[in-house]
Amino acid sequence: MHIGILTGGGDCPGLNAVIRAVTKALINECGARVTGIERGFLGLLERRVRPLGRREVSGILHLGGTILGTHNRADPFRYFGAGGADCSAQVMDYVRELGLDALVVIGGDGSMSIAHRFQELGLPVVGVPKTIDNDLMHTDRTFGFDSAVAVVTDAIERLETTAHSHGRVMIVETMGRYSGWIALEAGIAGAADVILLPELPYDIEAVAQHCRERETAQGYTVICIAEGAHPVGGSLQVQAHLPDSPDPLRLGGIGTVLQQQLQPLLSSEVRSVQLGHVQRGGSPTAFDRVLATRFGYHAAQLVAQRRFGCMVALAGDRCTEVPLADVAGRNRTVPPDHPLLQAARGLGVCLG
Amino acid sequence: MHIGILTGGGDCPGLNAVIRAVTKALINECGARVTGIERGFLGLLERRVRPLGRREVSGILHLGGTILGTHNRADPFRYFGAGGADCSAQVMDYVRELGLDALVVIGGDGSMSIAHRFQELGLPVVGVPKTIDNDLMHTDRTFGFDSAVAVVTDAIERLETTAHSHGRVMIVETMGRYSGWIALEAGIAGAADVILLPELPYDIEAVAQHCRERETAQGYTVICIAEGAHPVGGSLQVQAHLPDSPDPLRLGGIGTVLQQQLQPLLSSEVRSVQLGHVQRGGSPTAFDRVLATRFGYHAAQLVAQRRFGCMVALAGDRCTEVPLADVAGRNRTVPPDHPLLQAARGLGVCLG
Amino acid sequence: MHIGILTGGGDCPGLNAVIRAVTKALINECGARVTGIERGFLGLLERRVRPLGRREVSGILHLGGTILGTHNRADPFRYFGAGGADCSAQVMDYVRELGLDALVVIGGDGSMSIAHRFQELGLPVVGVPKTIDNDLMHTDRTFGFDSAVAVVTDAIERLETTAHSHGRVMIVETMGRYSGWIALEAGIAGAADVILLPELPYDIEAVAQHCRERETAQGYTVICIAEGAHPVGGSLQVQAHLPDSPDPLRLGGIGTVLQQQLQPLLSSEVRSVQLGHVQRGGSPTAFDRVLATRFGYHAAQLVAQRRFGCMVALAGDRCTEVPLADVAGRNRTVPPDHPLLQAARGLGVCLG
Amino acid sequence: MHIGILTGGGDCPGLNAVIRAVTKALINECGARVTGIERGFLGLLERRVRPLGRREVSGILHLGGTILGTHNRADPFRYFGAGGADCSAQVMDYVRELGLDALVVIGGDGSMSIAHRFQELGLPVVGVPKTIDNDLMHTDRTFGFDSAVAVVTDAIERLETTAHSHGRVMIVETMGRYSGWIALEAGIAGAADVILLPELPYDIEAVAQHCRERETAQGYTVICIAEGAHPVGGSLQVQAHLPDSPDPLRLGGIGTVLQQQLQPLLSSEVRSVQLGHVQRGGSPTAFDRVLATRFGYHAAQLVAQRRFGCMVALAGDRCTEVPLADVAGRNRTVPPDHPLLQAARGLGVCLG
Repeated sequence: MHIGILTGGGDCPGLNAVIRAVTKALINECGARVTGIERGFLGLLERRVRPLGRREVSGILHLGGTILGTHNRADPFRYFGAGGADCSAQVMDYVRELGLDALVVIGGDGSMSIAHRFQELGLPVVGVPKTIDNDLMHTDRTFGFDSAVAVVTDAIERLETTAHSHGRVMIVETMGRYSGWIALEAGIAGAADVILLPELPYDIEAVAQHCRERETAQGYTVICIAEGAHPVGGSLQVQAHLPDSPDPLRLGGIGTVLQQQLQPLLSSEVRSVQLGHVQRGGSPTAFDRVLATRFGYHAAQLVAQRRFGCMVALAGDRCTEVPLADVAGRNRTVPPDHPLLQAARGLGVCLG
Repeated sequence: MHIGILTGGGDCPGLNAVIRAVTKALINECGARVTGIERGFLGLLERRVRPLGRREVSGILHLGGTILGTHNRADPFRYFGAGGADCSAQVMDYVRELGLDALVVIGGDGSMSIAHRFQELGLPVVGVPKTIDNDLMHTDRTFGFDSAVAVVTDAIERLETTAHSHGRVMIVETMGRYSGWIALEAGIAGAADVILLPELPYDIEAVAQHCRERETAQGYTVICIAEGAHPVGGSLQVQAHLPDSPDPLRLGGIGTVLQQQLQPLLSSEVRSVQLGHVQRGGSPTAFDRVLATRFGYHAAQLVAQRRFGCMVALAGDRCTEVPLADVAGRNRTVPPDHPLLQAARGLGVCLG
Repeated sequence: MHIGILTGGGDCPGLNAVIRAVTKALINECGARVTGIERGFLGLLERRVRPLGRREVSGILHLGGTILGTHNRADPFRYFGAGGADCSAQVMDYVRELGLDALVVIGGDGSMSIAHRFQELGLPVVGVPKTIDNDLMHTDRTFGFDSAVAVVTDAIERLETTAHSHGRVMIVETMGRYSGWIALEAGIAGAADVILLPELPYDIEAVAQHCRERETAQGYTVICIAEGAHPVGGSLQVQAHLPDSPDPLRLGGIGTVLQQQLQPLLSSEVRSVQLGHVQRGGSPTAFDRVLATRFGYHAAQLVAQRRFGCMVALAGDRCTEVPLADVAGRNRTVPPDHPLLQAARGLGVCLG
Repeated sequence: MHIGILTGGGDCPGLNAVIRAVTKALINECGARVTGIERGFLGLLERRVRPLGRREVSGILHLGGTILGTHNRADPFRYFGAGGADCSAQVMDYVRELGLDALVVIGGDGSMSIAHRFQELGLPVVGVPKTIDNDLMHTDRTFGFDSAVAVVTDAIERLETTAHSHGRVMIVETMGRYSGWIALEAGIAGAADVILLPELPYDIEAVAQHCRERETAQGYTVICIAEGAHPVGGSLQVQAHLPDSPDPLRLGGIGTVLQQQLQPLLSSEVRSVQLGHVQRGGSPTAFDRVLATRFGYHAAQLVAQRRFGCMVALAGDRCTEVPLADVAGRNRTVPPDHPLLQAARGLGVCLG
């Protein structure tokens, strides 16, 4: 058996743990030959592959990023970009040349959709879900999320000491364009006073009122806001992410927007920090290493059992799988009645 | 409404997060008066209490230990120790004097059993499960466990560099007298080569053989062993923990026992480290802060809804509750077919 | 003896360690009464003080920020801002009312200059130097710097995994408006490939050339740039910090400027992260706790010996002191022949 | 020019940073060929070497341990152990075969002494000092020490929460057989209440008295004790470390001895933790990475300038060198009038 493996989309702590688990399990339990494909689907187009043995995947469990490299926008069905050429036939040729019996694809929504199309073209595929934002449908949790939450929580704690010492309002902007899981969990873990999510458009006056009450009582406020959050009726975040927008907001992100909205309404100084890429780099937490290892081992088992066309998933505390065909393009957002939102409200957190 | 709250048994990261969530939620949502009882059930005997308000529980989310203090062996039904006097009537008198409407008890197996008896004496109780070992029945996970796993994983990583540099066999002894969850998860997260659990008695020759193979191939070995692990047919660990045993093994723990067993069978040097109390102290991980906050908020809701006589529990990703009467004295051990054991085996880890 | 203590300027890890050491030592060794002044010199204007005893300074050693609060721009000699009124007489009245025998001022350049003027007005003062940037004249090192370097090093390491996985050029902007110590030490500790300092204006073409060579050889590049760095002949950084500039560069910082300069010259994607306030918040490193404790204890000894009008300093491995009159308004910048610059060059780091 | 490099003695965070700096600088600035010798001086006996190029030393700056391996007791002048054969001639033969022009030896006292003898036999040597205990004569600081202090400080902080919650006396035993630097700095940084060093034999009654006072006032005590500490007139620590002693104390270390001494004198429970090897493993702190890089670069410069027979040293903030002949076999202990001891006393710490 000859199995290919690739990582697609943005990098994420735990990718190497998956690569290691898939490779070791396939070698140990199936005697398989494993080939690593470089830079996501791009490697299948550019014919960049390398053999993966026990030695190659030894000592990588704790490493951030992916030893195979990845690529954000390499879709062989439209190379490059919308309107690009369909190069899937060349990929299939190369796969046949390599003699791959199946492909393990570790990636997000986009990668799963490409994986599904290859499965339909006759290349057996097993998917492993990856999203730092924890917003993929059909799986309760994804690796990388816990690590991101840990980084953000640590940052909020650091910023809290500064906010407290200076009597400031301090805004922390986290990842989460379409869903607020990172901001919500890290906001709770970091004891943020205000948590703003894409799912709950915020009323700037309500936020300001909460800050004013704290100005009197505690003297400072920490706000945790997801990248994709926006004011009620607002579309600021759309502008903010248009790649070619000349808008100064684009540079600063929604945290800067909120800073500019809040400052005139408050007497204390308002500052903001955009955490950026540090949230997705670095060594995975122990939790993510275990979860990624479980995902990788489960993927290898699916390969061994020739159960292709599906994606590994976590349901409760159990690894399971869902058909790739069902992995919709929708995001798993924070439902308005989620227990964590209720808990946050119950503890006095302002949710906008 | 006047609610008492206490923490019992060994300390555990996340206790303060629970205290904070219970207190804030009871004040915010029920207008309750909250009283903290000091040093577990001992405080009800020694009449040591103090009021808890928003200010008292502010800034404690990330603190290790418990601001209320705790006590390992304070059972009012036998004060102190087996054969001790039943002082429960005095406790009930004091509870009436204080005017407590209910009690929130954060603790392990022993504390839940005491809580249950008070419930039967007419004191409404809500329990919150606490065990760093993650081995309480009826709940999928408990706070503190993730923090302990993180500490142990970090230690394994540190020791791996030493083992590698010197070509040694390095043994790390973790907590887990009756169950191997910490050793198993941290062993996987730290890429230990051998993981030994109480649930799977080890064959010393099999362990030695694994080490010898690695002596040739990789040159070093890292072994993660739970405090309660023991050789096949062995009872060494029992002696090791008899409190008054004059046995030198008692001082060193099972890690030292294993070291002495292995050394004659290997050519490389064998060293062992017992991690001890560092595993249970210190700031909780973000994961544990969120889980403890959820548990605390759920406990407050149970109080608000006057649903007493039960313990908060986690089922999958949902907070729920189980009757205190059902909280057995049994430990939730690692089942022999647990997916993590399979994954470990599949990745080539020696399980004894 | 009645001693006042205040913290001025930006917050910095280790301030609480100094407050604790000064207070404990004055109480233990001199039987002094200690009064904490809130929010820097502002507290002397607004008459906000509180007593500091052993209990108040217990458990604060590891806390970030300052329990006394601080203020960036509170100068009693011009309240507020340039052209503000001289309120120093009111301060002196209040000091006499309080019955303060001396004042310990923990702060940067600006605070030392104010402290010196009060000394000249007859208020005995001991200064303790504070600057996260490590650029104060007359002292080899200041507390807080090591902590900032640790945070930045950790961030560079995280970003390196992302840069590597995606084949990107990743820019990290650190603090350091006038001096490059943080960027230099963290750049070396984080193995940055390019380090750009205010002291060495960079040639954009040389930087691009270095990145292009790495595009071929290693596939990615990490750049560590100090906030105050600027291109040869450039004045971008000046605009970048004008508080009211409408310039989009102001929002993004010099990192964004560099990103925009580099992107057209390279084929790989360029991204930038501005670390911001996380560099100055949070718990001090062990190194900074020891240094801050030494500074605080030395300050208390100077008070006990009535050696006023001077600032604590570190010379080699020894605590000493310099006259406040000598603490110039100049910054201690990285000299062009500094051994660390030579080492960086020798290791192949591009310095612009 | 062909230069060999080896690491000897116990492992220590920062060794890889030195290897990297020496290698990169020799290649970049001298065009040298660099050969890594495996497992310390043992590699010169067993003829185990490998070439070191830019690629081999890339990405190792932050790794704990040493990529070359090390050995604690490999002395070619007495192979193995006291009374062993003098194999130095074979080493010199091998060195000539390899065509080494010089050797860079990174190690402690013992390694420097061996290095010196080879220098006298005609092999040009440059030494780089390494001791986690920071107790080497002729250099103000060594890399690895800051990392060890950071690990111990973190452990003390964790244990403090446990001690506090349970009202216990908690003993932390640190490395430091002959000198107390680690215990002293980590004890101060971790706010230990009692710090016991080899240099200051402790009076058990004085320690107990301090604990009793804290039992009443604070309710708990944290004691930081160096491995080599001992009671006044006591020789317990000698027994404790005799490798073949059947004494149970040997297993537990001086921390256990102190626990057994203290428990009968106190009413609260006494527990102890021996930190062990975790203190010397793992990634170096940013401080140690910078220091190790400076040491390595300085060593390469000495080689380039053909200044052999000396060891790199730190004097104040400057890298310098001392003749290997002067590197005595004495340890740099904590002098009784050291400012840190005075500061500790001034802050109320019990020093025994």
